Amino acid sequence: MTAPITVTVDLAERSYPIHIGEGLLERAADIIPSIKGKKLFIVYDRNVEPHVARLKKSIGDAPSLALEGGEKTKSYAHLTQVTDWLLSNHVDRKSILFVVGGGVIGDLGGFAASVVLRGIPFIQVPTTLLAQVDSSVGGKTGINTSQGKNLIGAFYQPQAVLCDTDTLKTLPDRELKAGYAEIVKYGLLGSREFYEWLEANGKDVLSLKPASLKHAIETSCKMKAEIVGDDEREQAGGNRALLNLGHTFGHALEAAAGYDGRLLHGEAVSIGMVLAFRLCVKMGICSGQDATRMENHLKSCGLKTEISQISPALSQSPADLVALMSHDKKASAGKIGFILVKGIGQAFQSSDVDMALVETTLKSAI
Amino acid sequence: MTAPITVTVDLAERSYPIHIGEGLLERAADIIPSIKGKKLFIVYDRNVEPHVARLKKSIGDAPSLALEGGEKTKSYAHLTQVTDWLLSNHVDRKSILFVVGGGVIGDLGGFAASVVLRGIPFIQVPTTLLAQVDSSVGGKTGINTSQGKNLIGAFYQPQAVLCDTDTLKTLPDRELKAGYAEIVKYGLLGSREFYEWLEANGKDVLSLKPASLKHAIETSCKMKAEIVGDDEREQAGGNRALLNLGHTFGHALEAAAGYDGRLLHGEAVSIGMVLAFRLCVKMGICSGQDATRMENHLKSCGLKTEISQISPALSQSPADLVALMSHDKKASAGKIGFILVKGIGQAFQSSDVDMALVETTLKSAI
Repeated sequence: MTAPITVTVDLAERSYPIHIGEGLLERAADIIPSIKGKKLFIVYDRNVEPHVARLKKSIGDAPSLALEGGEKTKSYAHLTQVTDWLLSNHVDRKSILFVVGGGVIGDLGGFAASVVLRGIPFIQVPTTLLAQVDSSVGGKTGINTSQGKNLIGAFYQPQAVLCDTDTLKTLPDRELKAGYAEIVKYGLLGSREFYEWLEANGKDVLSLKPASLKHAIETSCKMKAEIVGDDEREQAGGNRALLNLGHTFGHALEAAAGYDGRLLHGEAVSIGMVLAFRLCVKMGICSGQDATRMENHLKSCGLKTEISQISPALSQSPADLVALMSHDKKASAGKIGFILVKGIGQAFQSSDVDMALVETTLKSAI
Repeated sequence: MTAPITVTVDLAERSYPIHIGEGLLERAADIIPSIKGKKLFIVYDRNVEPHVARLKKSIGDAPSLALEGGEKTKSYAHLTQVTDWLLSNHVDRKSILFVVGGGVIGDLGGFAASVVLRGIPFIQVPTTLLAQVDSSVGGKTGINTSQGKNLIGAFYQPQAVLCDTDTLKTLPDRELKAGYAEIVKYGLLGSREFYEWLEANGKDVLSLKPASLKHAIETSCKMKAEIVGDDEREQAGGNRALLNLGHTFGHALEAAAGYDGRLLHGEAVSIGMVLAFRLCVKMGICSGQDATRMENHLKSCGLKTEISQISPALSQSPADLVALMSHDKKASAGKIGFILVKGIGQAFQSSDVDMALVETTLKSAI
């Protein structure tokens, strides 16, 4: 067992470490000694039960609650279920909640930790590549409502994150690739160097070669931590919006697909990033060479790059998709925020985009 | 109309003003100019509809949601109702929620503001004396569950507080007195000078003489703001626990009464403070003179000072009440935290109390 790599998310008194490596769950109590003597609880995705068993080898038995991993679990009903369960099991303010699963369980469990007794510490154990490189940094927790995704929640930081790369061995290939799209995103938005490293090593990341995998997760977490900084609120300005590269298109595609499993978030982001690059080429601010290059890399990794690859096909027209974009949570006062690129590694925010060009871009991919 | 008194709660970037005075609701838009151009929403206690009408004279019409003022409103069901209502009315991240009512509506509305879109600004308009001197400072928001009161919630600061003393004119006398008990608490826990001012001016406060009333509210808010400081968490140490003077006894009495209306929170605190002083006399750390003096002042203001004054009488024995104390949220690892006094204005925290003395103290009041 090698020592884990540790990335520190620097948020003054709310700073926390992200530990990245193999076999971390069996060593959780050694890696996070502060859990000693505390009442521990585990909420987890039913699908990762074997990883919870590994965790219990280290921290001992603890009251555990299994939940389904789908988006439907991010609801008030499940929030109530988790908090009632914690309270019935005599949670106290020093208790620690382990949250083991992908983004859904992470968002729900973190939100539950933030509201029970007005906040107890929690330790995030992301078990998907997407969750390891995305939701492990940023403190966003929450649930969905009938009006949309993530409309209720809190900014709440974990006490520590355990990215155990062994959990990725049981992850379906499609989810692994979807998570990889978010890794590529970090290169595309802010580091040509990292992007080029991914071109050379992406296959090793996807085949879970330990050194490459850990480097990709570490770099992604570092970049997100740097971007998020102490700026917990997008409206306070800052660069956090850059993390939405590919997301304005992507969210519209996800909404169009009705979150029915046709399109994973990372897949939507992959197509969305391709569309964002094409849009910028059409706007004359990015070279066609860079757009083709990033598209080829995503394709070579087996990621979707065209709307037409979604199956069954979306029924929405480009105009319908444009309409969906303007309903996005991030659209305020009618303006649609886009993350544009001057090239690979050079993203910036703008809400000054010709919607006719956006529609043409969408047409190119259908 | 005189200019309002303003107390600033100093919490770095989350600092906010508490405006105290007459006729503030009709001037809300002038007093808080930052609301200009924002989508406004009002959630309020059905009983204070006339005060909401006064507010709308200033800020204009806004989507409004009336709720019942009782403890039952502090529930997940009502939280969902408020957030669904906000989302259906297209709340955005810059929208401002006015929360008009007593502690119940303040706690629920503030919590709803904290979770919708992961937090929107809210303006608290406390319409009871208790809420003006207590929940307007400290950032505690939340709801109850079947397991107990305030077990779910968030620390979340308002953008501003409007303490319009005109709202107290329609407040039932019993509630006014209960709020006054919390004002006396500030003197008893930390300022003999303020306590003596209250002995001399308490009647004027209770008859709503403007100058005395405003001074009492201002001093209470200042003292609470100073105690709370930037320390949003009791476990981080600090003096916040002192605010619980009378509350260990008081919470047990409230629980015993089953929150059925027999005993208002402030009434429970009044009896609880008397018991705390008697306990300290029995412990030999406080003079009987101070205990008698504070008891006489509370009596002279028409406040309850004995458990036997609760009607219908509590069925619980002193031993039952001791058992209830150990279930209090603040009791961690079996230790019951007490706020003790060395005299008027000199409170301190201790969990080293002989429970036999506590039981004897309870017997003295039944």
